[in-house]
Order: sequence, then structure tokens, then C-alpha cells
Amino acid sequence: MAIETTTTVAAVLPTPDAIGRFKPLDARHVRLSSDGFWGRRLEINRDRTIPHGFEQLNETGTLHNFRLAAGEKGTYRALGRMFEQPYPFLDSDVYKWLEAVGWELARGEDPALGAMATEAIELIGAAQRPDGYINSFVQVLGGGRAFADLAWGHELYCIGHLTQAAVAWHRALGDDRLLGIATRAADAVDRELGPSGRLAIEGHPVIEMALVELYRATDERRYLTLAARLIEARGHGLLGTGRFGAGYWQDHAPVRDAREVTGHAVRQLYLDCGAVDVAVELRDDALLEAVLRRWRDMVATRTYLTGGLGSRYLNEAFGDPYELPPDRAYAETCAAIASVMLAWRLSLATGDPACADIVERTIFNGVLPGVGLDGQSFFYVNTLQRRSHRAASQGNETTDGMRAPWFPCACCPPNLMRMMSSWPHYIATTDDDGIQVHQYAAAEIDAVIGPGNVRLAIDTTYPWSGRIGIRILEAPGRPWALTLRIPAWCTSAGLDLVSADTRARVAAARDGGTALVTTRNWQAGDRLELDLDMAPRVIEPDRRIDAVRGSVALERGPLVYCLESADLPENVVLEEVELNLPVGPQEADRADVAAETVGLAVPAMRRNGPAGGGWPYVEPDVPTDGVAVPAPIQVSAIPYFAWANRAADAMRVWIPVADGSDRSAEGDASR
Amino acid sequence: MAIETTTTVAAVLPTPDAIGRFKPLDARHVRLSSDGFWGRRLEINRDRTIPHGFEQLNETGTLHNFRLAAGEKGTYRALGRMFEQPYPFLDSDVYKWLEAVGWELARGEDPALGAMATEAIELIGAAQRPDGYINSFVQVLGGGRAFADLAWGHELYCIGHLTQAAVAWHRALGDDRLLGIATRAADAVDRELGPSGRLAIEGHPVIEMALVELYRATDERRYLTLAARLIEARGHGLLGTGRFGAGYWQDHAPVRDAREVTGHAVRQLYLDCGAVDVAVELRDDALLEAVLRRWRDMVATRTYLTGGLGSRYLNEAFGDPYELPPDRAYAETCAAIASVMLAWRLSLATGDPACADIVERTIFNGVLPGVGLDGQSFFYVNTLQRRSHRAASQGNETTDGMRAPWFPCACCPPNLMRMMSSWPHYIATTDDDGIQVHQYAAAEIDAVIGPGNVRLAIDTTYPWSGRIGIRILEAPGRPWALTLRIPAWCTSAGLDLVSADTRARVAAARDGGTALVTTRNWQAGDRLELDLDMAPRVIEPDRRIDAVRGSVALERGPLVYCLESADLPENVVLEEVELNLPVGPQEADRADVAAETVGLAVPAMRRNGPAGGGWPYVEPDVPTDGVAVPAPIQVSAIPYFAWANRAADAMRVWIPVADGSDRSAEGDASR
Repeated sequence: MAIETTTTVAAVLPTPDAIGRFKPLDARHVRLSSDGFWGRRLEINRDRTIPHGFEQLNETGTLHNFRLAAGEKGTYRALGRMFEQPYPFLDSDVYKWLEAVGWELARGEDPALGAMATEAIELIGAAQRPDGYINSFVQVLGGGRAFADLAWGHELYCIGHLTQAAVAWHRALGDDRLLGIATRAADAVDRELGPSGRLAIEGHPVIEMALVELYRATDERRYLTLAARLIEARGHGLLGTGRFGAGYWQDHAPVRDAREVTGHAVRQLYLDCGAVDVAVELRDDALLEAVLRRWRDMVATRTYLTGGLGSRYLNEAFGDPYELPPDRAYAETCAAIASVMLAWRLSLATGDPACADIVERTIFNGVLPGVGLDGQSFFYVNTLQRRSHRAASQGNETTDGMRAPWFPCACCPPNLMRMMSSWPHYIATTDDDGIQVHQYAAAEIDAVIGPGNVRLAIDTTYPWSGRIGIRILEAPGRPWALTLRIPAWCTSAGLDLVSADTRARVAAARDGGTALVTTRNWQAGDRLELDLDMAPRVIEPDRRIDAVRGSVALERGPLVYCLESADLPENVVLEEVELNLPVGPQEADRADVAAETVGLAVPAMRRNGPAGGGWPYVEPDVPTDGVAVPAPIQVSAIPYFAWANRAADAMRVWIPVADGSDRSAEGDASR
Repeated sequence: MAIETTTTVAAVLPTPDAIGRFKPLDARHVRLSSDGFWGRRLEINRDRTIPHGFEQLNETGTLHNFRLAAGEKGTYRALGRMFEQPYPFLDSDVYKWLEAVGWELARGEDPALGAMATEAIELIGAAQRPDGYINSFVQVLGGGRAFADLAWGHELYCIGHLTQAAVAWHRALGDDRLLGIATRAADAVDRELGPSGRLAIEGHPVIEMALVELYRATDERRYLTLAARLIEARGHGLLGTGRFGAGYWQDHAPVRDAREVTGHAVRQLYLDCGAVDVAVELRDDALLEAVLRRWRDMVATRTYLTGGLGSRYLNEAFGDPYELPPDRAYAETCAAIASVMLAWRLSLATGDPACADIVERTIFNGVLPGVGLDGQSFFYVNTLQRRSHRAASQGNETTDGMRAPWFPCACCPPNLMRMMSSWPHYIATTDDDGIQVHQYAAAEIDAVIGPGNVRLAIDTTYPWSGRIGIRILEAPGRPWALTLRIPAWCTSAGLDLVSADTRARVAAARDGGTALVTTRNWQAGDRLELDLDMAPRVIEPDRRIDAVRGSVALERGPLVYCLESADLPENVVLEEVELNLPVGPQEADRADVAAETVGLAVPAMRRNGPAGGGWPYVEPDVPTDGVAVPAPIQVSAIPYFAWANRAADAMRVWIPVADGSDRSAEGDASR
């Protein structure tokens, strides 16, 4: 083993014996520059989002509920109710918040944050029962009857998140206060559901992956065994059909048999994360292959352009293949986060660059839109289309409008916090021969690899520019491989060795979705430049995605773009805009929306629908009154992640194409 | 008053003082021929559907629950639960079934049916409390606390349906057993919520229209006053926001202010039926205008091609304007029935032919698909697209598949029964000058109009043929007006006076959506022929209906067509089929699907999607492997109402158009 795992603080840390193509290289070895795109976003997460989270956990009563569990008198507090009871899963929000703080404190001291965390940890410790069990809802309102409602109780779910936080604090800070609590709680679960307990599973997976990480952190194999047991027990109908059918909680088919994702998206994705963790530790190729097969099918048939997952509001569920409505996209922020977690695990296990592609697409376009530029407002649902005119009163779908400061079911905001705090873990990996850079961000990276110590600095304004500078700061003096991911969206990339006055092509790629591997006796002082083609792209959906037929989307680099009504000419409504192919999107400065932002200026047509007609279905040759002559207009698209930061605007990712557009030529014209 | 209202048995019967352009002409005056399209459907309804309903009401325990309310010992039975309690609205299924039987028995004796009905009526009578209150759920499980849960209890909803059944039995049969029960129940409601009671409303409207009809049947103005009070009280937040927001039950804005339909579709439509009934009786033009405005907006922006209503599974709700996904159409059968009821009321009040157009479109394409050709299977949800491949396990959405014999929430089947039994009421009306024929069906019609007695026979195989023969059997010898609706879908119609060897054009229309009014001293023996252009039509959606952009639908006469996978060439899946415009649909015999059925043979292309690609979004100029050369195929469309009678097939109403199709020419080519 070349890598010293003891100093690795990654969110996912397979043991040396596990199946694994790559080894994680974490935040201790990947230091983001504070002036890069991600460095700045992480600063906002640390300075604004996480403190806001603590405030909300206090204000909404989520922390207070632990005090009640610890014996204080008072009323259980929750903003939301399920089956006429307060939500039973709120403890998990505190745990996710704590996980974020753990990763943050490892990157730099922060006494204020540390004090908040200590308050929370002490509350949790006080609330825990002598038998290790902990769940404020059950202890306060459920008569203390542990594991009595596995279908809906979310007790294992909460303990799973507690365990993830505990592992983070253990790895990042060597602080085992939470680990002690989590271990005792996991032991309580093991007594109940382990080999000597009953065969049963919970409605909401997450504990499976947490238990594998607990095994990795403690070397206590019981936890791996329990995780494997829970994975294998699912899919045999132990949960019953509940309200939404067995598929809702993936209990309709064994995890190693089910060929498609189904049901509640976050449950499916968390489950598959756990299945990968179990598979790699047990070197269970068949189980790994089952998840991979399901994942590839999901990517090909049920994934939004943004990486978002979940096509239905009803049951927060995946839909049928190619059922991907933009306006009613559910695309829960938590599902995007879970997708990053799953793709990352598959990337480590298989080395398939398609996994890192999904990580990139999803972090920029599926996760990042979930938090406002202010860092204190959140989307639960991430729609791909918001109409100019909406119904006057559509009930309580507050998530449809602007981002909210918090939610009754507040799973997404603290999940965003821990995702952002974990992001440095996802940048690069190693193997015995070298370093793989999967995500581009201004950063300094060091690693111990087979040939010796390596250190390099990455300098880039990515995703605004496709130019990525790499300086070798330290090298072992023996050949090693520098592997650079060429994203699937990129059709041309070149790697040059540059000095003050020379530039020599080292390697090049014509197709994206691959990796540029250059093995060389790199020297300290070497300067490289990777150039990724960032030309704006016009994207068509697969013919089978009915809901966006006849429309195209705009992309540039890793970013999906959208039209927002704030950027339309006066008196033009979004529904009148059609692209006139071949379009040639031009880059435009949109620093007015967000720092450094590159927008896309696009020629379009303003096209009225048939006006005045009382019936919206016509024969094409029937003349319709009131249709204005189409008029050329110019519109400006912004990155999707930056939408809804100005007003509760109309927005669309998929833009209709005007009749008579020449689609065959558009690709060339856009270059 | 020329018309003898005492002999009229219509479902809607405004008083002589009410606002009204037309007067109903009901089943006693409109006798459908047993060999016509509707005559046969009604026979199936009477012989198979209604007895099946009684069987199901027995088997599922819905009738049994009345026995418990009457004092028998036993367990309350319900297939479905709401908030962990058995459904509280099941009584209404018995009432709707009884309404159907009432209309049926008026058209002909049937001792078996009569015995079933008497059993039900006696059970209801036994269950009613001395104070008039009746609701088996509250009496058995709710501790008898009447009107304690107005938001969700459905007590007024059940009494509303009881009242509608009672009015049917009163009008159709002069049998007032139910009317006595309903009157006492309405009095209990009046005491609780009338002028001397509290100001409150219920979550599910229907009692409003029922009370107006009770007023019409009993001449007791208290019921009209109560109905008006309930209409006016809604929209002021009396119900609170509940789980789904105030808009869910239309309590967000006063009925006379709300400009758009919103929330739960059936609730909105039943409410607006009641609002029209109140408006016409109180001669409240402003209230009538408010409903009309809302209805026109709904027709223009939220109505499926089939007449179906309700775009969202979540909350069974209307969506935003132009949010009309075909695959996730909710389009509840009950909503289509409610739409017929509302359009009919507006038609009577205003005479606008657009109302009868919606009645026709909806009965054929929104209501009729809700029941199988066997008469004993039902759709709750009426999708416009069912994919070839569906998720392996999507929970309990049984309504997505084949029609079911019954449902835990069984509102739709008995609603279909009473709608079918009521259908003769919707065929024709009168005014002082003559008769208006709104719907075409083989029938004999008689009426007393200003000039005297009129009787005519209509002979047609409509909707298969557009030729409608009309024989004048009796005429007063003075001029009177025969008004024939020219449907909006019809662009050319002619009315000829024919004899054995002559044919003289009497009138013609070039545009549909109008009425051909011919005032003449028609003579007994006159034979007329109305010819409606039935050429197959290719229909495009409004540009703003995003979900079906780039697709067209096929129609012929009043029927919407669909492609069903059973009719595709071997090995072709539905998702590969694209129409090659200009298409020229040819009529084809499809008696294999249903008697006399005219199908449409359409030239199409088989077009594979990009195959093998792991990511479904591409640049158009990127070559994709595995795409087969498009091949011409022939497909055959069937009427939408006849789908899913062979297998749980894939189906689609909106069919993609192949690239390069010439849309501008398609209209001409299809003629």
C-alpha cells in the first residue's frame, strides 16, 4: 500500500482489501484555492450556509427535540407532520449538519463553529439512552418503543446519518465523541437486526453505507456483516407494500436482481451506495455489477440533462424510462447529492470515466442550483421549467417558487452543506502509478504514490475557461502517470508542456468521455496546460424523451444553461421564444448575475401562439387570427445553477425550435 | 310556459323563472334507438354495468356499512384508508348507483333491478338517524359526531349524492322514498350550516348543485338559499389550508372572483356546477359570468384533447396553463363526467354551441374510455400515453394498467353508471320556437313547443358516419325552428330535404362551432339529411403545450384516435413510430376492435432512437451508432375510447412527426 490511509479523510474510504481501481485523495491532500470557483462556493458554505443551518436547527426546534429526549420538559417541535404526527426523521438534519462541520474544521479552525458543534454533540450524547438507542421522536412521542415502525420510523435512517457524521469527525479531526455515540447506536441496531436479531429492514436506506464506513473506521467487521445483511434482506417483501407499493422502498426485488431504479429516488440511490460499499469490501463482483447495470440504465433513461433524478412529485419517484418532464421535474436536491455519492463510489471501484462525468454534471447542474448565491436559501425541487403564468393557487408547493430559507422536511439544506464540505474529496484519486484528476478546480494536490511524493498546483477559472494550468511542484524523479479526465461533453482537448516561450503538445484527445494518461518522468518546475474545448453546444434530447421533443438545450463546458424571463426583451414572455436554428450562441459577460459568469447570447424568434382561440388544438391549415409575424430577437442564457437569484422568474432549460430551422447544420454553426 | 315541466325527467331542470336559453328535453322525450351507438352502450350499462355495481357494492362492504349504521353488529368495511381510517365517503357510491337505477327504471321496468334498488333504499332508510343525519362512517366509527370534520369528512358530499339520487327517483319514477330521506338529511344540513347555523363549508363540493335540484323538485326555497350560502362562503379560508393549500378545495378566492380553475379537478367542477345552478335560479348574471369566464379559460388552457381534465397525479389537480402531459395525464373519469355536467348547465343557460362541443368531445373521449367494452371494468385515470416499457414496480398505481373491476376509492364506476343512464337528457333541448339537437344519436324525439307538438326520428350510425337522417313524424302545421349543432371539428355541413328521387339543399355551414337554424313549416313526412364532413383530421397542439410539441393527433368526427401497440407491425415498438407528413389517413374497418368501428390507416416511419448511447442528450451532428435506416410502415389507429380492451398495451394519442415532414401541406393532403 503506497497510500497512507491513516491520514486520509475522505468521505468514502475503502479498505486496502476492497475492490478498487482508484484510491481516494481527500481534502487533506487536495486544497482548493480560495479564489477559484469551488473555493469561493465552499467559503460561502462555511461562512454563511452552515451557521444559517445551526440557526435554523435551533429555530425550528430540531435541536430542542434532543433536549426533550435527554429528559427536559417541553413540546416536541416539528414544522411538518406525517400521518398526523410530527416528522420522525428530523434528528438526521442535525447529524448531516455535524458532518459538514467535521469536514470544515479539518480544513481550518473556527472556534464559533466548533462551539456550535460541541453544543449539538453534547445534546446528542445526553439524549442517547443507556442501551445505545437514540431517536428523539421515539423517545419523546413514541413511548420509547425502539424499532417498532421500521417502515416509516426512520430510526435506522437517523442512526445512519449519525454514523456518517461520526466517521467524518473521526477521520477529519480524530475527534471520537460522536463515534462513541454512533458505535453504541449501531450496536443497538445490530442487536435488533443483526445475525442474532430479527430479519427486517427499514423503509429508508442510508444506514447500509454508514455501517460500512463505520467498519472501515473501527475495523469492527460486525458492522460490515450487518450492512450486508440489510442489503440482502431487501427485496423480499419484508416491508410490505405500504401506501405506495413495495417498489417505493425498493423491496419488490432483491438488490442484486432489480434491473432498474424504481420508487423513491433518494431511497434507491442511498441503497445502491450501500450496496457498492458492501460489494467492494466483500469483493462481491456480482453485487457490484448489479448496481452498475442499474446505474447505467438510470443514466441512459431516467436522468435529467442537469443530472437531476426523480420525475414524479407523487412519491418523489423515478418514472418510467424517458419520462422526464421538465416542468414537473422533481429532481430533489438530495437525489442529486445521492447521485454524486453513488457515481463516486462506482468511479473508485471501476475507474469508468463516465462516473466522474456524472459527478461533474450533477454537482454543477443538479446540486449547485439547490442553494442560492446567498448561501442561505434552498430548493428542494429543481424544476427545469417554470412558466410565465402559473396557477393562482396551487396549494403548498412552496418549493416551486423562490428558494426557501428552510423546509418542514429539511433534508436538503444540511445535505447540501455536507456535500459542499466534502467536495474536495471528489477532485482527484491515486493508484500505484500516479494521480488522476477527475474534477478541475484551482487547487494544490499532493500524494504519495508508488514512485514517491508528488505535489502539483492547478490554476484555472474553470468552469468559465477550459484552460487548466498544472505546475509540478514536487516529483519523485521517476516516471509516474498524470491522468486527466476529458469530459464527455468535450470533443477536443490538448495537453501542452509550456515554458516562457515554447509550447509542446504532450497529448491530445478527440473524443470526450475518456482520460488522457501521460506517463513521464515529470520534473518539479514543469508547467502543463490542458485545453478543453468550451465552445457552446446545442443539445438535442433522445427521441424517446417525449416531454422535450422539438426543443434544444444550450450547454457550455460542464454547465447547462437556461433562459430566464429577466433576460428577455421588454414585453416578451418566455413562451414566445423559439430558437432559430442553426443558432450560433455567442459568449457574453454575465457578471451581473454571478461573479465571472459567462452567458450565452442566442438569436431567436418571438413567436406568438394562436391567440384568442378558445380551443388549443387545431388543424395546421386552419388560419388563426391574431398570430403576430415572427420577429427576430436576441436572448441571453445564463448557467442553470444561477437561476432564481433575481426574482421568481419564468425559466426554461429546453427551448423550442422554430419551424423551418435547419437542424442538420446547427452543430457546425455553433462552433 | 309551453313545456310541461312536470313530465320532464332531466338531470338538470331549471325553474321557469331561471336564466335559461334552452330548456331540457329529457329521456321521456328523447328515446334512443337500441341499435344506435349510444343505444347499445346504454344497454350494456343497464344489463351489465349496473348489476355489476350492485355486486361490487355488496362484495366490498359498502352496502353492509349501512346495516352497521342501522344498528347491526359488525366491522366497518372499506378497501381504502385515509389518514389511517377507512374511507369516509363510500356511502356516495350507493347513492350514485341508485341515481343510475332511477333513470333506468323510468325507461323500462326491470324487476330485478328494482329489487336491488329497494334493498338499498330500505337500508338507507334504516340507517338514517331520527334527526335526519346519515353517514355510515360517522355513525359507526366517528362516535356519531355529525359535521365534526367538514374539511375531510365528506358528509355533505354524501348527502349531496343522496339528494341527486332522490331527485332522480322523484322525477323519473314519482317514487319519493329517497326524497323523504334526502329532505330530512338536507334539513339536518340546513340546521347546521344554514342561515341559523354556523358559517362553514365542506371540503368536497357537490351538495350545492344537489340542493338547487332539491329546491326545484320540492319548491322549498330554503334549499336554494342554503346552496347560495355555501357557494358564497367558499373562498374565504374557512377550511384552512389543510394539507394541500386552500386552492385544493377552491377556498383561496371567492367563487365569483377566481379567474382560473385550480386544485382538485372534480371539486372545482362540481362547485362550478352548483354555482351555475344557483346563478340561474337567482338570476345572478355576475356569478354566471364568473363561472363562464373560468370555464372558457379552462377549455383554452387546461383541457386535454380528449376533454379530460386534471394534469397532476399529486392532489388530482389541475396544473398550470398548458401543463398537459399525455403520459402523466390524470384525467379522472369523474372529472370528465363533472365537465359534461358543467358544460351542459352552461349550454342551457347561454346557448353557446361551444358548450355542447365540449359535452360531445368529453362524452366520447373523456367519459367513454373510463369503462371497458365489457361494461364491467373501469379506468379511474385516463392516460393519453402508455409506454412500451414501464418501470418494473411503480407501486400501487393499478389505475395505470388495464381497467379494474372496482377501486378502493370507487367514485368513478357508479358515476359512469349515472352518467350513461342520464345521457338521453343531453341530446336535445327546446325553446319557444323549436327544437335544438345538440348530440347526434339514433333516437325518436318529441316535444311541445310554442307552435304545437313536434315529433321526429333521427336515424344515424354516428359517430361512424356523418350522415344524420331526420324524419318529421309530427308537426304543428306552423313554422318552427329545427336547430342542428354543427360541431366545431366539422368544417363543412349541409342539410338537404330528400325524397325518393330529389335532394334539395336547405342550409349549409362552412365553419363548425355553430348551429344551423332552419325555420320552416315542416311537415310530417319531411325527410332531411344532415351531412357532417367526417374526413380524418391531423391535429396540432397549441405551441404552448410543451409536452406534446412536435407531435400530432388524429381525429375523425367527434372521436380522438390513438395508436395501440397491438396494431403495429411485428417487432415494431410504439416509440419507434413517427408520422411522415403530409399524412393521408385512410378509413379502415376495425370491427375487430369494436362493432362497426372505423379505424384510420396511416403511413408512418419506423425510426430508431439513438441506440446504445449511455447518455440520452446529444449534439445533433454527433454520429450515433446503431440507428437503423428509417423504414416506411403502415399503422392503424383506433378510437381512443376503445383502447386497452385487448391487452395492457402501449398506446399514444399524440404521435411524433418525422423530421423533414411538410407540415404546411398536411391539412390539404388529409382531405
